[in-house]
Amino acid sequence: MVARPNRILPADRTVTGRFITLEGGEGVGKSTQIRALSAALEARDIEAVATREPGGSAGAEAIRTLLMEGSDDRWDSRSEALLFAAARADHVARTIRPALDRGAWVLCDRFVDSSRAYQGGGGGITDADLLTLHGFGSLGLLPDRTFLLTVSADEAARRLTERGGRDRMGNKPADYQARLAARFVEMAMSEPSRWRIVDADAAATDVTAAILAELAEWL
Amino acid sequence: MVARPNRILPADRTVTGRFITLEGGEGVGKSTQIRALSAALEARDIEAVATREPGGSAGAEAIRTLLMEGSDDRWDSRSEALLFAAARADHVARTIRPALDRGAWVLCDRFVDSSRAYQGGGGGITDADLLTLHGFGSLGLLPDRTFLLTVSADEAARRLTERGGRDRMGNKPADYQARLAARFVEMAMSEPSRWRIVDADAAATDVTAAILAELAEWL
Repeated sequence: MVARPNRILPADRTVTGRFITLEGGEGVGKSTQIRALSAALEARDIEAVATREPGGSAGAEAIRTLLMEGSDDRWDSRSEALLFAAARADHVARTIRPALDRGAWVLCDRFVDSSRAYQGGGGGITDADLLTLHGFGSLGLLPDRTFLLTVSADEAARRLTERGGRDRMGNKPADYQARLAARFVEMAMSEPSRWRIVDADAAATDVTAAILAELAEWL
Repeated sequence: MVARPNRILPADRTVTGRFITLEGGEGVGKSTQIRALSAALEARDIEAVATREPGGSAGAEAIRTLLMEGSDDRWDSRSEALLFAAARADHVARTIRPALDRGAWVLCDRFVDSSRAYQGGGGGITDADLLTLHGFGSLGLLPDRTFLLTVSADEAARRLTERGGRDRMGNKPADYQARLAARFVEMAMSEPSRWRIVDADAAATDVTAAILAELAEWL
């Protein structure tokens, strides 16, 4: 079992599909941006596969139900990390790799970096262990480009209040959210070739334009 | 993440509880023996916790449903191995370790060795990877004693026919069952201090007596 955290293109990727992920805390606008980016790609006659984690395939959606429902302490941190890795393995095998293999662009709302931030930074599992699980389950697949959407703490709180109820994952205190945001920035800074940080306090259309500008080299 | 396949007693085990597992293919009489051994221990005023895998705790039973239902190809082998490891981690954290910590004897119908035989021998996952997952999820906990119940192929077929329907795991051809049986024997031979091989073609009461004789040193 060898984790391959720094291999962006696994050896079997000989295709033109692109794997793009959006990361960040709750309420930063990831799902809104995924929809806008999908539309922008389809307008350019590029097949866009919009998906999300946990979930994105039949098996992974079933695992998602186990992860999102129930009390905060339903799972200990190790079981939880294994369940996320199992869901991701299914998602990669059944949805993401087939799409990339046929040349589609995959736009994914959260991926392994969310596990690294939530189960790692907040949950006490080491980054090395999380990458080992990812190396085993998903053969270490990493995105071609990852956009970290950041908002000010005030703006994040306002959007979450607007949105209403939170699920098991979002129901955490403010200092937890702050540590999470810091952990995301730390990951982005440590791997600048893959990550781009986007100021998502701006209007949604401006955020979409900023992301598309970063993807211009592939369009 | 360090797998500890050869550590029988993890460093934090300072208690008198015993962890006993029964292994083998379907129809060898594991659940019958678990019931008989529980009764024999309770008759000696020893608390016996009878449990089984996949399952044995609320979370693990929910994962069991995902694993046992659906078509043969519902999960690819890596997702399946991660789900078994997640279920086992929950089972260990919520049921097995608490029982051992209070001095109970845990009698478990299948444990990590079943993953090594089914996902490993039959499913194409390496033994090293399975032990790494076990090292992460369950901190490498291994039984104090593992009994491999073996029956002749004819006897196994007879018992399975008697029992009627099989689930997703059991619905495999005869040569698969033969390779599985050989894999169990191979594991037992490679770690003789932990394993005992028991001829389970004999009457159930004789099998129980043989197992209890092997446990006499602790009784």
